[in-house]
Amino acid sequence: MTGARAAFADRLAALVEERRSQIVLGLDPDPSKLWVAPASAVVGPGEAPAIVAALVESHCRRAIAAAGSACVAVKPQLACFERLGAPGWSALAAVVRAAQEAGLLVIADGKRGDVPVTARAYAQALVGETPTPFGTIPGLGVDAFTANPLLGRDALEPFTEAARAAGAGCFVLVRTSNPGAAEIQDEPGDDPLHVRLARLVDGVGADHTGESGLSSIGAVTGATRPDLLKRLRQLMPAAVFLLPGVGAQGGSVEDLAPAFEPHPAAGLIAASRSIVDAHEQRGGDPARAAQEAAEELRAAAWQHATS
Amino acid sequence: MTGARAAFADRLAALVEERRSQIVLGLDPDPSKLWVAPASAVVGPGEAPAIVAALVESHCRRAIAAAGSACVAVKPQLACFERLGAPGWSALAAVVRAAQEAGLLVIADGKRGDVPVTARAYAQALVGETPTPFGTIPGLGVDAFTANPLLGRDALEPFTEAARAAGAGCFVLVRTSNPGAAEIQDEPGDDPLHVRLARLVDGVGADHTGESGLSSIGAVTGATRPDLLKRLRQLMPAAVFLLPGVGAQGGSVEDLAPAFEPHPAAGLIAASRSIVDAHEQRGGDPARAAQEAAEELRAAAWQHATS
Repeated sequence: MTGARAAFADRLAALVEERRSQIVLGLDPDPSKLWVAPASAVVGPGEAPAIVAALVESHCRRAIAAAGSACVAVKPQLACFERLGAPGWSALAAVVRAAQEAGLLVIADGKRGDVPVTARAYAQALVGETPTPFGTIPGLGVDAFTANPLLGRDALEPFTEAARAAGAGCFVLVRTSNPGAAEIQDEPGDDPLHVRLARLVDGVGADHTGESGLSSIGAVTGATRPDLLKRLRQLMPAAVFLLPGVGAQGGSVEDLAPAFEPHPAAGLIAASRSIVDAHEQRGGDPARAAQEAAEELRAAAWQHATS
Repeated sequence: MTGARAAFADRLAALVEERRSQIVLGLDPDPSKLWVAPASAVVGPGEAPAIVAALVESHCRRAIAAAGSACVAVKPQLACFERLGAPGWSALAAVVRAAQEAGLLVIADGKRGDVPVTARAYAQALVGETPTPFGTIPGLGVDAFTANPLLGRDALEPFTEAARAAGAGCFVLVRTSNPGAAEIQDEPGDDPLHVRLARLVDGVGADHTGESGLSSIGAVTGATRPDLLKRLRQLMPAAVFLLPGVGAQGGSVEDLAPAFEPHPAAGLIAASRSIVDAHEQRGGDPARAAQEAAEELRAAAWQHATS
């Protein structure tokens, strides 16, 4: 796990060029909207978690098989697995492996953030390993993960150092895509929080820059506020922007040019519902609809990013 | 689970008076510092997670048995269980049950925060349940949990509404106890983030106030910066303050008076290493040292809170 892999930013840059894709397939499995599941079924008490977790794993594997070839990475949403208990965590680990075996990078979306000693424990769970008297216990082994910077620089560093040791990346929340983000992240007007967070990311990420010129310390910058991207790119010239909010949340690929300025791999477009639930609009087979939606998004993003 | 329990703030207020304690036992189990474990041992490949998770569960049960009578709640640190994989999540669920069976409230410390649709999934994992075609899957069923407010009001509301439905509480990060918190949370000087977060907590918590006058929407306010507590109490008159940082991080009970002003249950002192690792300073049996350390902290806090 540790030391064997090249820096995340360089692995990402190579894979984006190879696949001509900046698309990140979001995996936010909802047990009542799986591709393969009955409308209702009766099982014994206590049996539901294992059954549902197995179906969630199957669903994610199918989504990866269908849409993965148009993508560069997958982004499993940890909340959607945690709510299934221990079987959900096992399903998550299996989905991580399946995506990596399909040649995709895995960005674990957990948005963890805690005091330094606890941040180290989260990093062990994500990209490191935990020493015990019975040998080390490996973490999920993902390629990158999201992190919440509210607790400040000393609380981010255990994440960024663990990422470096594992050849992994860390995407730090800077400006999220939800409507309520404005009240906290865009205030006060003369020195908004998202600007201060961008400076923090740029500072922490400076010595994580790879041969591609990109840093393995990236930023989550919602595609729903493209007007902010130019300033954020100035503040974080080397960061890879992970851009959620295209599609279902209203963001559009055409508006994201500043993200891609430094490099085709400097912007990653995260899409989940608009791919996995594409059959709801398009009709027909979910896998085929997902494949088509992902390929259309890939082609549009690649054109805008390289034009 | 839902609707059966009284509001968290009122359950807490009654239990604090009954137990004459504001102490929250932090459970941050480190596999290399368990009360019951060999210095090293050889096991087969892949066996470590289940073995270590079982020992972690045993360790937490013993800590609860030893120190629980001096406490009002336990606070398991989710990172420490997640790093053990699926067996760790099972151990967490078992520790939650064990603490509740011992008459203690459980505050799950995960500091989750995400866009609204994902916050709902985290809330299902913590205090709710997840509907599936195979019946509902219950979450951990904890009494309260910590949450990260960086994403704003719309991202907090799924947490607070799920808490209300379950008779649970939500402690929102306002000013954390780590040194690096200052750079983000105390700036800019004229309108610092921790003040804006305090206003948010007070606003969201207003209609969660119980018969005790306390709100079930509380605040995490580090004991390492007691000089801020007076202002924070003015801004959040009804919030229960969860105060980490006493002991190992340098905070002291004597400085926390503003937390307790509205009510003896308006401040909760979270201590983990200073109780669970007390034998390192005191010598002797870990359980006995933990019991003594917890009882001393309980008596000191009760005296200061009610004087």
